[in-house]
Amino acid sequence: MRITAIYDSVESIASDIQNAYINFSQMTCSVVAVVTDQIVDGRPVVGFGFNSNGRYNASGILKDRLIPRLLEANPDDLIDSEGFLDPHLAWDVMMQNEKPGGHGERSVAVGVLDMALWDARAKMQNRPLYQLLAERAQRTPDDQVWVYAAGGYYYPGKDIVGLQDEFRQYLDLGYTVCKMKIGAASLGHDCDRIEAALQIVGEGNLCVDANGRFDRETALAYADAIQQYNLFWYEEAGDPLDFDIQAALTDAYALPTATGENLFSHQDARNLLRYGGMRSEVDYLQFDCALSYGLVEYYRTLDVLADYGWSPRRVVPHGGHQMSLHLAAGLGLGGNESYPGVFQPFGGFSDELTIEASYVGLPNSPGLGLENKANYRKMLKDAFGDRLALA
Amino acid sequence: MRITAIYDSVESIASDIQNAYINFSQMTCSVVAVVTDQIVDGRPVVGFGFNSNGRYNASGILKDRLIPRLLEANPDDLIDSEGFLDPHLAWDVMMQNEKPGGHGERSVAVGVLDMALWDARAKMQNRPLYQLLAERAQRTPDDQVWVYAAGGYYYPGKDIVGLQDEFRQYLDLGYTVCKMKIGAASLGHDCDRIEAALQIVGEGNLCVDANGRFDRETALAYADAIQQYNLFWYEEAGDPLDFDIQAALTDAYALPTATGENLFSHQDARNLLRYGGMRSEVDYLQFDCALSYGLVEYYRTLDVLADYGWSPRRVVPHGGHQMSLHLAAGLGLGGNESYPGVFQPFGGFSDELTIEASYVGLPNSPGLGLENKANYRKMLKDAFGDRLALA
Repeated sequence: MRITAIYDSVESIASDIQNAYINFSQMTCSVVAVVTDQIVDGRPVVGFGFNSNGRYNASGILKDRLIPRLLEANPDDLIDSEGFLDPHLAWDVMMQNEKPGGHGERSVAVGVLDMALWDARAKMQNRPLYQLLAERAQRTPDDQVWVYAAGGYYYPGKDIVGLQDEFRQYLDLGYTVCKMKIGAASLGHDCDRIEAALQIVGEGNLCVDANGRFDRETALAYADAIQQYNLFWYEEAGDPLDFDIQAALTDAYALPTATGENLFSHQDARNLLRYGGMRSEVDYLQFDCALSYGLVEYYRTLDVLADYGWSPRRVVPHGGHQMSLHLAAGLGLGGNESYPGVFQPFGGFSDELTIEASYVGLPNSPGLGLENKANYRKMLKDAFGDRLALA
Repeated sequence: MRITAIYDSVESIASDIQNAYINFSQMTCSVVAVVTDQIVDGRPVVGFGFNSNGRYNASGILKDRLIPRLLEANPDDLIDSEGFLDPHLAWDVMMQNEKPGGHGERSVAVGVLDMALWDARAKMQNRPLYQLLAERAQRTPDDQVWVYAAGGYYYPGKDIVGLQDEFRQYLDLGYTVCKMKIGAASLGHDCDRIEAALQIVGEGNLCVDANGRFDRETALAYADAIQQYNLFWYEEAGDPLDFDIQAALTDAYALPTATGENLFSHQDARNLLRYGGMRSEVDYLQFDCALSYGLVEYYRTLDVLADYGWSPRRVVPHGGHQMSLHLAAGLGLGGNESYPGVFQPFGGFSDELTIEASYVGLPNSPGLGLENKANYRKMLKDAFGDRLALA
């Protein structure tokens, strides 16, 4: 078994949304195809991967460093004792001659390839990835995963009506918990928006997300003002690396906070647990494997969590993609984000999966199973159809 | 005044050296030329920048994101009240629509352009950059900067002789303080190497560098073993983001430690000061602007240092390049690294500058003044000569 080719492509993941920090109009995403000579059902196994939204394509690092290292490696160095492609071994090859520290961008590039390698690996064993992960973890996989609808954007000129209409759509789709942006307006206006949203989703079902925009004083002022609303969680108040703000927040705010989508290594995750004052019975962690050196590194991050007394059930990954859905069901995470309708074709889950009472089932197809998603399949055909025979 | 073009190129910065973590045989570097329509001495001002050694080229991020943003910006948004190109304003433009956190690679790309922008800015005022920086800081610039020779590699089969020969060459070049690698051999063998090196450089003149390789136990075992040698500093014992190792080290080891070359933002630097147990009267900080979002971000880092009671004199940047030489003299840092002979043509200082008693003077040419370095000038000609009229 060997990798015969790796193709990469840059695709648009643009949307017209905007959070408190950035707009997404120029956002791009890397897509890779890892082609192997392992035959399953008469065809060579190909694994596909992509990166999550919010960070740009990683094309330069993929082409200059990671893809050449994988293709130049001795094929035997990528295969485990069962004779299959081993993403853990591939990880060590990709990270050859990389210095420690500086976890950003490179972590995205590794995450893209890691996803494709796990997709290929599970396809080689002709089963959905989550089943493979559960078996390796010696646990019974979850047969459904809790998901919440992320969105809750600003609608200039019709903020209240626009937000309520958006959340009504999410409830119609089967979600019960919804998340809205805060921090791009005054505290007073954000409170008006929160109250309007609560009218739709009901008490206990609303998350708010500041996208790391607040300084300490503002983070605490919001905490004080929103405590009355009994929110599901208060997300990423301050800069993701300012653990002192997070610690001050968990000190002042009794209800759940959530953060971690902008921490991209187990070392950064460990620093959050060491210094951020996070409460293992109350708060949520949102690390996204597709931005953070992939599942191989995610295992290390979960080990760090265990060292600090955290259950994987406190982890609800950022990103709203099907890779994290497999992790959640296979490894027993607490759930997964979902972005109904945006970041297409990379966001969301296989077309046959529907949401009921904020839970979603798992795909039956081998690997990640995203080929059952029509717009994803079309994107793959457009990107790689000239080089790969795609159904 | 406006930017008329930005060119970029990827150059080899390969060397046959190896530290405890990586080898440098495939190392590359980004070089950029920022072309303006500002005429000085009859020619349009062009600023040049490059990134430091140890991290790879940032071509993808430069081409996809940063260069287009600068070229598409309204030229007036890049000019300060004096009518000159303003690197601070350019920084905000480059970082548009970038999420917080994840400081690596992107920090290199911004650092490369920031260097070119400062080079251009100082050339527009027809003076060396360090003078401009000192004036802005309302201080008298230093007329010389302390430098030390970094190297001290492993020489398989002739470790002792090879190391002693290498350090003799550095002393002949005018250095008194030298730095050697540790951590790629046993503690016993490294102690033999340290004793051999001390025979050449003399007590008090030797630094050792573990390049982040050690776990806590090993870091402390080395600290215990080397305390007897009265070393100049003990550098980067553990993972750059494992601040607990650093704190344990400064607790156990009375002599100076040094770290920071793999922290790439003021937020990461602040975490080192908050959690790493660093002693402002004893230890050294080694942040490298060319890898860390450039001088604009370095000002923020220096502000963080001041907040935590640190003098800029405790800062001795990594990298051995002339940009940090200007920062050191202009802003009153403690010195600068030097890599005699390696990482060429990007390492080292203008050809007319010589080292005496481990001090080096400053270049007289406008900007960074690296065009006086023959191999750098030749590299620029090879990279950009088809698009730029270069002397």
